[in-house]
Amino acid sequence: MHSHVFDQAIALTATGDDCYTGATSPAYANMVGPFGGITAATALNAVLQHPALLGEPLSLTVNFCAALADGPFAVSAQPVRTNRSTQHWVVSVTQPGPSGAAETVVTASVVTAARRTTWSVDDEPLPAVPRPGELPPYTVPSPVAWIQRYEMRPVEGAIPHTWDGSGSDSRSRLWMRDAAPRALDLSGLAALADVFFPRIWLRRATRVPAGTVSMTVYFHAGSAQLAEVGHGWVLGQARAQAFRNGFFDQTALLWSETGHLLCSSHQVVYYKE
Amino acid sequence: MHSHVFDQAIALTATGDDCYTGATSPAYANMVGPFGGITAATALNAVLQHPALLGEPLSLTVNFCAALADGPFAVSAQPVRTNRSTQHWVVSVTQPGPSGAAETVVTASVVTAARRTTWSVDDEPLPAVPRPGELPPYTVPSPVAWIQRYEMRPVEGAIPHTWDGSGSDSRSRLWMRDAAPRALDLSGLAALADVFFPRIWLRRATRVPAGTVSMTVYFHAGSAQLAEVGHGWVLGQARAQAFRNGFFDQTALLWSETGHLLCSSHQVVYYKE
Repeated sequence: MHSHVFDQAIALTATGDDCYTGATSPAYANMVGPFGGITAATALNAVLQHPALLGEPLSLTVNFCAALADGPFAVSAQPVRTNRSTQHWVVSVTQPGPSGAAETVVTASVVTAARRTTWSVDDEPLPAVPRPGELPPYTVPSPVAWIQRYEMRPVEGAIPHTWDGSGSDSRSRLWMRDAAPRALDLSGLAALADVFFPRIWLRRATRVPAGTVSMTVYFHAGSAQLAEVGHGWVLGQARAQAFRNGFFDQTALLWSETGHLLCSSHQVVYYKE
Repeated sequence: MHSHVFDQAIALTATGDDCYTGATSPAYANMVGPFGGITAATALNAVLQHPALLGEPLSLTVNFCAALADGPFAVSAQPVRTNRSTQHWVVSVTQPGPSGAAETVVTASVVTAARRTTWSVDDEPLPAVPRPGELPPYTVPSPVAWIQRYEMRPVEGAIPHTWDGSGSDSRSRLWMRDAAPRALDLSGLAALADVFFPRIWLRRATRVPAGTVSMTVYFHAGSAQLAEVGHGWVLGQARAQAFRNGFFDQTALLWSETGHLLCSSHQVVYYKE
């Protein structure tokens, strides 16, 4: 049996204490370097397969320092603090620079936690939107490879058809899942949190260069709840709050089709002009 | 002339390349350890006073690994990647543990950027709320020291008077500023982003132990725009999106009285029961 293309892309080989190697996957190539979501999932994966891991991911912050070059990279994941029920990780991804010396291309931090059953409530309910089965199949108008790895059904705020500067809103809602069936898990969710195209394209109906600088995911669901989703659809909602001097923020929510808020996610994104 | 108590609290002394020492301030003491906002501001301050700094803060993520003990601490701030217009920083705060060896109490990452004038727009306008001058002075019902460092005027969602489990909403809005006059700056804004009391107290009208685990600030304003605020009021809005298995998320926005969105900020918070 072949492993899923996603699992191949985030695969890491341990090379020593806290150290791993991996390689970029052409299947998740973006315009320049890989899809940020696959890089975030890879950074998380280093923690998930670390022998010292306590609990499950609670928060993940990934800072994209530079585009990854096609080819191998090294990942370091260190548990810098282990408490009774939480653990703090510092992660970095490096690649050889022009001089051959290792250069930092990604920094990340992860908090994991052994979670308990408590009083719980979702205050952001699943929006009232058409179900994925009621929506037609959709092809994202983009030539990049990673887009083909996902099935997407926009509900509102799809990529504009005409780039005429007429945008007035930055909110998108879409159903999404892996194109090739794969049960949702924590690394899969981290990648999904970065699926949204740049909010500036929608807000201005103008296509300008843009790229995520830093993203954070707060995991509300654990692996057991994600397993219930299986290969089901996830509703993603993303919107910007401000565009200012070359950077905008994006705030996103992801729900299961049964209405559980799986994670909230935020990012700050560079844009040109 | 004496410096402001806030500047005293975040003051750092360089002890070598990338290394600083500071000390906790009784003026910003919380229930256990210092106010998280002052710790976030201190971590940011290490970057702000670093000789290699490029540009101004764009994003700040602070992970609270353990409560700081009263007394001195060491801060390390390393520029791990410097691009043409962005710079990536890895920060940590350590204190001697029981054995005398340095233990990590905070990890942080900062992205700084040289920002350009571009097309810009705020999509989250200042809510229509009473102005601070129209609201009575207010004393937060809390014995902790750091609360006294701020003047606060709640507009909605103040700390409940009665802890009767009757809560139904988690949104607070309040005007806030330093109690002793101080012109707003980047470190001051980072601290203000953590002023909100735990959302779970409001949502449940039940007081349970709670503490921030990780927080992120996306700076929309630079130092010049903050200087225009001076000692003016800032409107803060915070709400939770989900409470699940011992942790909730909080999403916050901070505006100047003239209606500029100064930053967005997010955090994930531990709670008991």
